[in-house]
Amino acid sequence: MVVIGKVAVIGGGSTYTPELVDGFIVHRDEVQVKEVALHDIDPQRLEVVGGLVERMVRHAELPTRITRTTDRAAALDGAAFVISQIRVGGMAARIRDEHIPLAYGVVGQETTGPGGTLKAWRTIPVVLEIARDVERLAPDAWFINFTNPSGIITETLLKHTSLKAVGLCNNPINFTRLVAGLFGVPDEAVFLEWVGLNHVNWIRRVYVEGRDVSADLMAKVREGLPFYPFDADLVEALGVFPTWYLQYYYYPDRKVAEMRAAGKTRGEVVTEVERDLLRKYADPSLVVKPPELSQRGGALYSEAAVRLILSLVLDRRDVQVVDTRNGGAIPDLPADGVVEVPCVVGAHGVTPLRMGPLPETVRPLCQTVKAWEAWTVEAGVTGSHRAALMAMVTNPLVRSVDLARVLLEEMLEANREYLPQFF
Amino acid sequence: MVVIGKVAVIGGGSTYTPELVDGFIVHRDEVQVKEVALHDIDPQRLEVVGGLVERMVRHAELPTRITRTTDRAAALDGAAFVISQIRVGGMAARIRDEHIPLAYGVVGQETTGPGGTLKAWRTIPVVLEIARDVERLAPDAWFINFTNPSGIITETLLKHTSLKAVGLCNNPINFTRLVAGLFGVPDEAVFLEWVGLNHVNWIRRVYVEGRDVSADLMAKVREGLPFYPFDADLVEALGVFPTWYLQYYYYPDRKVAEMRAAGKTRGEVVTEVERDLLRKYADPSLVVKPPELSQRGGALYSEAAVRLILSLVLDRRDVQVVDTRNGGAIPDLPADGVVEVPCVVGAHGVTPLRMGPLPETVRPLCQTVKAWEAWTVEAGVTGSHRAALMAMVTNPLVRSVDLARVLLEEMLEANREYLPQFF
Amino acid sequence: MVVIGKVAVIGGGSTYTPELVDGFIVHRDEVQVKEVALHDIDPQRLEVVGGLVERMVRHAELPTRITRTTDRAAALDGAAFVISQIRVGGMAARIRDEHIPLAYGVVGQETTGPGGTLKAWRTIPVVLEIARDVERLAPDAWFINFTNPSGIITETLLKHTSLKAVGLCNNPINFTRLVAGLFGVPDEAVFLEWVGLNHVNWIRRVYVEGRDVSADLMAKVREGLPFYPFDADLVEALGVFPTWYLQYYYYPDRKVAEMRAAGKTRGEVVTEVERDLLRKYADPSLVVKPPELSQRGGALYSEAAVRLILSLVLDRRDVQVVDTRNGGAIPDLPADGVVEVPCVVGAHGVTPLRMGPLPETVRPLCQTVKAWEAWTVEAGVTGSHRAALMAMVTNPLVRSVDLARVLLEEMLEANREYLPQFF
Amino acid sequence: MVVIGKVAVIGGGSTYTPELVDGFIVHRDEVQVKEVALHDIDPQRLEVVGGLVERMVRHAELPTRITRTTDRAAALDGAAFVISQIRVGGMAARIRDEHIPLAYGVVGQETTGPGGTLKAWRTIPVVLEIARDVERLAPDAWFINFTNPSGIITETLLKHTSLKAVGLCNNPINFTRLVAGLFGVPDEAVFLEWVGLNHVNWIRRVYVEGRDVSADLMAKVREGLPFYPFDADLVEALGVFPTWYLQYYYYPDRKVAEMRAAGKTRGEVVTEVERDLLRKYADPSLVVKPPELSQRGGALYSEAAVRLILSLVLDRRDVQVVDTRNGGAIPDLPADGVVEVPCVVGAHGVTPLRMGPLPETVRPLCQTVKAWEAWTVEAGVTGSHRAALMAMVTNPLVRSVDLARVLLEEMLEANREYLPQFF
Repeated sequence: MVVIGKVAVIGGGSTYTPELVDGFIVHRDEVQVKEVALHDIDPQRLEVVGGLVERMVRHAELPTRITRTTDRAAALDGAAFVISQIRVGGMAARIRDEHIPLAYGVVGQETTGPGGTLKAWRTIPVVLEIARDVERLAPDAWFINFTNPSGIITETLLKHTSLKAVGLCNNPINFTRLVAGLFGVPDEAVFLEWVGLNHVNWIRRVYVEGRDVSADLMAKVREGLPFYPFDADLVEALGVFPTWYLQYYYYPDRKVAEMRAAGKTRGEVVTEVERDLLRKYADPSLVVKPPELSQRGGALYSEAAVRLILSLVLDRRDVQVVDTRNGGAIPDLPADGVVEVPCVVGAHGVTPLRMGPLPETVRPLCQTVKAWEAWTVEAGVTGSHRAALMAMVTNPLVRSVDLARVLLEEMLEANREYLPQFF
Repeated sequence: MVVIGKVAVIGGGSTYTPELVDGFIVHRDEVQVKEVALHDIDPQRLEVVGGLVERMVRHAELPTRITRTTDRAAALDGAAFVISQIRVGGMAARIRDEHIPLAYGVVGQETTGPGGTLKAWRTIPVVLEIARDVERLAPDAWFINFTNPSGIITETLLKHTSLKAVGLCNNPINFTRLVAGLFGVPDEAVFLEWVGLNHVNWIRRVYVEGRDVSADLMAKVREGLPFYPFDADLVEALGVFPTWYLQYYYYPDRKVAEMRAAGKTRGEVVTEVERDLLRKYADPSLVVKPPELSQRGGALYSEAAVRLILSLVLDRRDVQVVDTRNGGAIPDLPADGVVEVPCVVGAHGVTPLRMGPLPETVRPLCQTVKAWEAWTVEAGVTGSHRAALMAMVTNPLVRSVDLARVLLEEMLEANREYLPQFF
Repeated sequence: MVVIGKVAVIGGGSTYTPELVDGFIVHRDEVQVKEVALHDIDPQRLEVVGGLVERMVRHAELPTRITRTTDRAAALDGAAFVISQIRVGGMAARIRDEHIPLAYGVVGQETTGPGGTLKAWRTIPVVLEIARDVERLAPDAWFINFTNPSGIITETLLKHTSLKAVGLCNNPINFTRLVAGLFGVPDEAVFLEWVGLNHVNWIRRVYVEGRDVSADLMAKVREGLPFYPFDADLVEALGVFPTWYLQYYYYPDRKVAEMRAAGKTRGEVVTEVERDLLRKYADPSLVVKPPELSQRGGALYSEAAVRLILSLVLDRRDVQVVDTRNGGAIPDLPADGVVEVPCVVGAHGVTPLRMGPLPETVRPLCQTVKAWEAWTVEAGVTGSHRAALMAMVTNPLVRSVDLARVLLEEMLEANREYLPQFF
Repeated sequence: MVVIGKVAVIGGGSTYTPELVDGFIVHRDEVQVKEVALHDIDPQRLEVVGGLVERMVRHAELPTRITRTTDRAAALDGAAFVISQIRVGGMAARIRDEHIPLAYGVVGQETTGPGGTLKAWRTIPVVLEIARDVERLAPDAWFINFTNPSGIITETLLKHTSLKAVGLCNNPINFTRLVAGLFGVPDEAVFLEWVGLNHVNWIRRVYVEGRDVSADLMAKVREGLPFYPFDADLVEALGVFPTWYLQYYYYPDRKVAEMRAAGKTRGEVVTEVERDLLRKYADPSLVVKPPELSQRGGALYSEAAVRLILSLVLDRRDVQVVDTRNGGAIPDLPADGVVEVPCVVGAHGVTPLRMGPLPETVRPLCQTVKAWEAWTVEAGVTGSHRAALMAMVTNPLVRSVDLARVLLEEMLEANREYLPQFF
């Protein structure tokens, strides 16, 4: 069992925090954290969420100390790991990101389309500030980014700071579990040739116990796979399996119609879920992660985070799908950009496997979204209006330059208070 | 002065033919063609157009023999040059290509979007038949392709036949003349760093007498350039000059609105222009190219064609913008695909200049359209429904998989008689 | 514990076989082999070596059945693993490979220089015959190649057969142990950024427990590292650590002088070692691997082989350095060639890590040797004299075309009986 | 006819200067130079050579003014073209470059091997000083480099200054004339697919009047081509035609034997030729370029120089083989390095043709020499001993690290006075 000094959680008031701490409880035989330092700008949430995780830890009889602070430097100082799960502008900003595009018939979603662009731009100035603190106070720490859009934020950190940053998403572990369930095997028996970017990825081949079961999985898709939103004829034409978020790119009209029909945006739904959750969290008799948390959308996040931390600390050199610098793993994407691919994770860091060229059925979409990401990073860091226009124009969900211009103007204005780089 | 034995014109009944023959008349001091063999499947047009060009040649006192035939083999046999300017399905098919997409709010245009896809698919079986004849009857001939979509047809020929094929478009020569006019110099003083594909290209730098005048041209765009359909802020953001057909990609909503407002499609307009032209052509007193031809859209075609022929015959090794195999001239496009770039043209053939990576502002659009072209070629040659769906899905003007599927079905059905490979 | 049906050992009469079987004894808790089928063309060696390993297995009370046969098909039929450790032409041919170049002042060595070329050419026809049998009789078997030159033979198999072939060498495991010893840690704590080809590789970075100890190792090289044959100033200039066999490329004059001074070639020494070993093996009282075997040169081979087999069978997906198809892992080497790099090994197969471009200090040597390997494969498979001359000319130890021609002629002639492809 | 203000010739006292001025006389109908400013550090040579060219110009009744100065700034000020043909250390240094390697059995030659390395290192500090003057006094001038090793010096200028530098060699024009002679056509009818580096290049295909005559030329090589030093079987194996200087790489032992047998080095021979030439030049009755100049080795230099100047001034955009930045013209060489390939030359500058990957028969040699060039530039600019060792080790004519070290030490010492960057 390995002992870690301090894990700092930026955005510690997030409703996800109990999920993360639960991970440390579940994996107590492998890793013990001396201190979990929760930082948040919202003292009230910090108290509610911090209170719950403190009770969880005590209940589990873990020696871990839970500290809470609104002083970021105090939280970061000397941390071995920094976990970032912030949401700049909160749910209110997310809901604006959803509504404005929708009014123009464009997908309003927090990581894809114009919504993802604006979320990135609000986040980048803050995450760079955090990074400057980390560079100063915990220069050897691993920085694990959960903040969406995870690939873009990780790329910002890798291009513009000296942080040892890794991006994480629960999409890979969820798909792994889906396959494991379908084939009746444990997660460990599944190996996915996962290629692409965060939220824009495809599975080229699916192995179960080393056997290529891609054709079997295709047959299941044809029969109809619950919660898998892609038509079999598209999947067959692609020759690879698109994952969840690609529905926004393949079926934007369908998604826009659904969103409009829904009445509420996802952000509005989540706001209610969170309100309920926080009410539950505040209950002093609650000493374990409540089951409702899984509706929040972060299922298996703790699993992903703890597995990553364990391999970084224990030098496991096992294979995990994370967001890291490409460096030629996928030769038809820029070398300096971030990709989401299987990587060997050890104490030395994160080394991607050689994935080779993108399948030609998905190459242009992946290249286009990657270009959007790069422009989003550039505009988010520099505040360049030219880069901002290019980000909007390049996004495949924005169908014309005229629309790009209108959306850009309206959304910049709506987020003015969070965008010091632009105003 | 060089003498060429036979120039075969496939689609010789095209209203463009007088333009081409006029080129030989204008350049009579440099090149003399012994025989121009006009082939067409429409005997009536052949008679009208053939009659005019015969009168033109006689009036110019050129020794060139004009022959007309509906027997393709006879026309091709022993030709030194084959010029292809066919239109499979005629204007009626073009008008269908325009109307069907427009009904779904998609640009209906003969070379971009779904219209371009279907025009390619109608043309590919016929052009491959022609190619088999050329391989047999004129294996050393240069095959100059004017038939649209010119890049796709040329790629088909270079990938699937042994022809010495070159694609040609009047877009480069028109832009050259535009610049020459703006700066008050002859065409020869202009050098354009032209990068991209047929109808999807940008000018990276503009030189006049070797001086980089890109910034001057940008200033003129900002002041407002007649007939240049791009907003200055887009051009400035791109950092390169888009050319004419890119308006369909940058402003699809604007173009759809215009098309809908116009009442008539371009195909319908051209049908009338052609009817009038052919009436004029039939007038036995007409002995020169009528001025109305320039409205037809092929301005300077003859100039481009004759310049290409002269350099191929005279081994001039000068620089011309044509469509040819990429081979790394633009490293971020497939090596085996066709690109439109400045090339050295000599008797040895066509060698592209090293243009280097695409500007990052235009890279994803260019890569996406190139992928659409490649799928269009594959589907057009094999009749694969999977490739056909990928062609539709990949086209940037088709906004979703659902729309792609609907358009594909309806347009294949509407073109059934011309698509033996699919049915 | 996993059970494997049959392991076929081609060249089972090799003095290395006890080493391999010892590996199965040591790892008995993880893997159990039902049958080890030894095949050899020399019945006498088969009897001696087979007798020993049978006694070893019995003594260890392993249920493994040892079978011996001179019928290759019988040995291969139904095997789950095929291990190839043949030596075509035996030690006599090796000694010729050493003497002929040496007479011209060229390194005479069994895997580098002209000796490696000829060893490859003798081996290729035989290994292709074996491969045809494997394709027929054990198409799903993993083919583990120990036969030198291991990279070239593996490349031959991957380019010209359908075998699931992996090349193996004890060089990586030996260097790992060297580092482990220097830093006082177990092998597992060491992670090497191993780049290059079989016998032509460098270590870009050395990690111990995830810490980059490259500078510490460099300091030890400067102090003088026993058995490490490279000058500190060369290693510092390279910026990476060359491994053992590179001394032939960096110090060919020194090595030629040593070889000449030695009186005996390595092949002659090994012949004697083997004679003694076989005498020992024949002693019916010997029931364990004799300690003298380690002098033979294959130290830790069994360790490497068993680790590879275990990961392939148990789907471990751990990192091992093996020889496999490049596919862009090192972008400045051909994608279809074999490289030696860290790979994730699981039941799905072998996936290289993305190693990125070669360090520029070693790039040209590595590219040159890779080109020699590719020509050697081509000539070895086709018998093309042009390819054979290119192989000789390209080898960096052959200093001129004139010398290449002389060596080629003399060495082909000396090996005539083993080179059906050339004669 | 175009008028050029001032052409500055650095190293104007070179015996080549009359060759250059003769070029202006021959091409008087196309170009007229107002002033040729000769600069040299040797006033005596300046007087002799300057005197001759002045008489040549007067005799030809050209209005060109010949000025002579030892003040470099005065010569450069306001020049439209700067031509560099300096020799740092003079013939004495060259002779040392030849003798030292030869003593170790290594080719002693002024552009290849260790001699080329040292010549580059002596030249780089001086050429960078000149470049600083040009940046200041003639920032828009074209800088035409004749100074050997021409590729390395041009790469130095393109990497480390802002000069519009082009490298020139008479090798391409000589080979063109050779082919023209063999096929009985004028130079203009020949088109060579020239790939590689200065003095390390191959002709992939030879066209005469657009016809591929490579096979015909190969037949002539087999019959025996005067002055073509390559065996037919090597040329056939390569599949491309090596040019003159490659004999040092393909036949180093043969060349060393010849050099040793010759008694005198090439530098010693040239010293005598130059002494005689200068004596002739001093003769006031001499008013034209003396025929003996052609023995000096720079045949057709003037032709190459004047053709280059004319295309740069007249915006001819014709194809010439010069040394320029690669930028992907040959994708398997570094993009930022200098290559020697066919380029389109116009007033906009020099744009290489897309030559595509190197033939695989020559790739490793070309890549190795390119790496040597890059290390030579780096060491020459920085004085880094590590880079200097890498330059020596990488050179294919230096057969071992031990030899590299010895040669490096001895040759640095012998050139101490010219190597401020190292000492």
